[in-house]
Amino acid sequence: VEVINTFTHIVGEPYVLIGSGLEDYTTDWRKRTLGKALAVVLPGNTQEVAKVVKVCIAHNIPIVPQGGNTGLVLGGIPDNSGRQLILSLKRLHHIRNIDVANACITVEAGCTLISIQVAAKKAQWFFPLSMGSEGSCTIGGNLATNAGGTQVLRYGTTRDLCLGLEIVTPQGEVLDDLSALRKDNTGYDLRHLLIGSEGTLGIITAASLKLFPLPKTKSHVWLALTDTHLVLDLLVIARQRLGTYLSAFEVMNTFSLKLVRKHYPEIAIPLLSDGKDYPWYVLLEVSDTTTITNLQPVLQAFLEDTLKDSIVSDIAIAQNLQQSQHFWKIRESIPLAQSREGLNVKHDIALPSAQIPIFVTQTDLLLSKEFRDIRIVNYGHWGDGNLHYNIQCPEGTDPKTFLAEYETNINQMVYAQVAKYRGSISAEHGIGGLKRRALQGYKSPVALAMMRTIKKALDPKNILNPGRVL
Amino acid sequence: VEVINTFTHIVGEPYVLIGSGLEDYTTDWRKRTLGKALAVVLPGNTQEVAKVVKVCIAHNIPIVPQGGNTGLVLGGIPDNSGRQLILSLKRLHHIRNIDVANACITVEAGCTLISIQVAAKKAQWFFPLSMGSEGSCTIGGNLATNAGGTQVLRYGTTRDLCLGLEIVTPQGEVLDDLSALRKDNTGYDLRHLLIGSEGTLGIITAASLKLFPLPKTKSHVWLALTDTHLVLDLLVIARQRLGTYLSAFEVMNTFSLKLVRKHYPEIAIPLLSDGKDYPWYVLLEVSDTTTITNLQPVLQAFLEDTLKDSIVSDIAIAQNLQQSQHFWKIRESIPLAQSREGLNVKHDIALPSAQIPIFVTQTDLLLSKEFRDIRIVNYGHWGDGNLHYNIQCPEGTDPKTFLAEYETNINQMVYAQVAKYRGSISAEHGIGGLKRRALQGYKSPVALAMMRTIKKALDPKNILNPGRVL
Repeated sequence: VEVINTFTHIVGEPYVLIGSGLEDYTTDWRKRTLGKALAVVLPGNTQEVAKVVKVCIAHNIPIVPQGGNTGLVLGGIPDNSGRQLILSLKRLHHIRNIDVANACITVEAGCTLISIQVAAKKAQWFFPLSMGSEGSCTIGGNLATNAGGTQVLRYGTTRDLCLGLEIVTPQGEVLDDLSALRKDNTGYDLRHLLIGSEGTLGIITAASLKLFPLPKTKSHVWLALTDTHLVLDLLVIARQRLGTYLSAFEVMNTFSLKLVRKHYPEIAIPLLSDGKDYPWYVLLEVSDTTTITNLQPVLQAFLEDTLKDSIVSDIAIAQNLQQSQHFWKIRESIPLAQSREGLNVKHDIALPSAQIPIFVTQTDLLLSKEFRDIRIVNYGHWGDGNLHYNIQCPEGTDPKTFLAEYETNINQMVYAQVAKYRGSISAEHGIGGLKRRALQGYKSPVALAMMRTIKKALDPKNILNPGRVL
Repeated sequence: VEVINTFTHIVGEPYVLIGSGLEDYTTDWRKRTLGKALAVVLPGNTQEVAKVVKVCIAHNIPIVPQGGNTGLVLGGIPDNSGRQLILSLKRLHHIRNIDVANACITVEAGCTLISIQVAAKKAQWFFPLSMGSEGSCTIGGNLATNAGGTQVLRYGTTRDLCLGLEIVTPQGEVLDDLSALRKDNTGYDLRHLLIGSEGTLGIITAASLKLFPLPKTKSHVWLALTDTHLVLDLLVIARQRLGTYLSAFEVMNTFSLKLVRKHYPEIAIPLLSDGKDYPWYVLLEVSDTTTITNLQPVLQAFLEDTLKDSIVSDIAIAQNLQQSQHFWKIRESIPLAQSREGLNVKHDIALPSAQIPIFVTQTDLLLSKEFRDIRIVNYGHWGDGNLHYNIQCPEGTDPKTFLAEYETNINQMVYAQVAKYRGSISAEHGIGGLKRRALQGYKSPVALAMMRTIKKALDPKNILNPGRVL
């Protein structure tokens, strides 16, 4: 109680929440896990964050930093002890400035991703980070988890878009590295160490982010293919011939699209009819930042050659903006259709591109043998080697029962396959609390030892997000 | 002696060098400093590197990892004690493989930069890292110092080009992170921590690097401007209108070009004649990866507008490959002309782009007042905010005497100005032994404390490159 008063003193009474009605902060995005918080504290600026951290150090209160609470790996909600404090960055939601000379924007951690996109666009610039949760997720969370999304192929992950951070250290000190230099070789790269550390090494309070010229033209193509090897061939040729124009390469298996058709019958899906479908579909996007150059002939020649060489079986080209948006809508409806179909086992894995075909063939087979009649929803950002390889229970069975019985086994089988082909068990969602145990089994022991050493050295009292990542 | 035998046992007799004749390894690139080594050891593979490190740990022998020994900040040569071991990575010079599906190349640390460029080109790909020393410098050194060069504007620094590392830790363990995943969010980013750590946290033995489509067309323009503010305006407009096509934006002051003309009179310099010159020149490069799109109209319109708006005073356009190469030759002759003119005080600084004009005006003035008749060679990668802001002694005076008397004061004055505008005292060369003391004065104490904590935790015996960076 006394410590609650101290927090109130720092941030003001309306910004310390205790008692009941905190489910928005304590329940995870997928509504599968409910934690219990000592309190939710919402500081109004960086200095208040630092002060709260110092109080927590003095009282040995573990801190769970939280942004939009859209994480999928239980990295941003407290455990059940009721001892952990949620430090919400929501009130740090100001765009601090846009620097045209350096093409960068400086924003506070609690800004939603969409608010940054909008601010950039208003100033005639483009901030490319984009994902399904962009209306709710915050840039602090994007940075803490090094989020991915749909534009990674051309613009990189969140890490690649960041020029500088302001952080509060586990000692409650403020590190201001927001000068947004494009080059700075003065010692260890603390920024990259913090990005992706999921709130365990410091609390990100603000960031400087790269801006890009607004794409002036975009073209979208929907392609049907018969085999994973051909999908890979298509990717290689697209990379070489479309170069930096290639801005998305999304792959979907037939079942994931059939699920969309089932739950959203109003969404027409090109090249998929009852008599005729293909095992694989690709949504390919090219974009350009100038209006004078014309991408159409390049794209046309590329498509003709892939048809002629039988890499691609059929093609639908978006004829206007509306059709382009429609192609994206299909792709983005897959996870929603999955939710409607019911609880499922999700994997967010990455593989060396060359290994994707054999991985998919083998793992499909292994799973189907072991778990009869399961349905595999395989889609994702193959251009980045990233698959969302999800398992839906057999039709007509109860998802909850299925997951209770088989989720762990399915995870193990998939992760073992990932390890075999030197992939990653978390491509873009992070480790959080959910994959922490799995990480111990699949990450190099040398890397794990280095990570533990770093965590222990920088946060010896284990105040910041304990029990996550490590 | 006994330990020398142990090294011989590990790497073979021809690869342990002791006694005299080691100047190539113990003298720095600028021939200003001569160290003394216990021995030079040249392992033939990663396992041998690990074994050598373990022996050094057991015998408390400090290790100085060395690549092409082209560093400019005394990061790769031993001190005078005769106790430090040079561990040369030169024999690890194999291209391990090229993965077309993932557009990446895996190389050993001792590969010269040029050998990687050549291997990529042979396979019809482009590895963009490029700098004056590319014939001698090694990729291990490029990574350890996060080297920059001439293509950073479009492709980023060495850090941005790396997909994975193989390292030997300060404990002599091998960490293999070469699966070259484009996305991997499984814990702290050890790769980025190692890159730019200048051999103090681990020894890089191999790396996976991104490849890009070969640029098919390149255009070069030489522009004359009257004022730094106009240079900045030009950069902003170029970024917005030329977008990703913009691949270099190099700026030179008149004096740097006059120095080239003096020492290389055979090199004709456009827009610089006796009666007529301009304070500032820009070399601008646009490049494209396809041959079908045509950049010329975009570039043409851009140039016309900058002339019409009086941003640019005069323009010379390279009409063919030979002229393009000639433009680059002028730019690259500046440091060579500086050497011919004599010893000088070098700075490799970065500033927020918007601050460059005021920084240059103020610092020129301050220095000229304090050090009469000095000559300022100001050139560099302004597109990245990076200036090589170098001071040549007054004409007719002795460089050695001048430097002995004034180098420290000049450094202090320049660095104080850099600090004032929140810049970096080392944009691309690193800290090494040379700027270590300066770093203490100009880096955030919070950042320095974190760096020291990390170094101490990962290398508690201070075996790896002690006395560098920190």
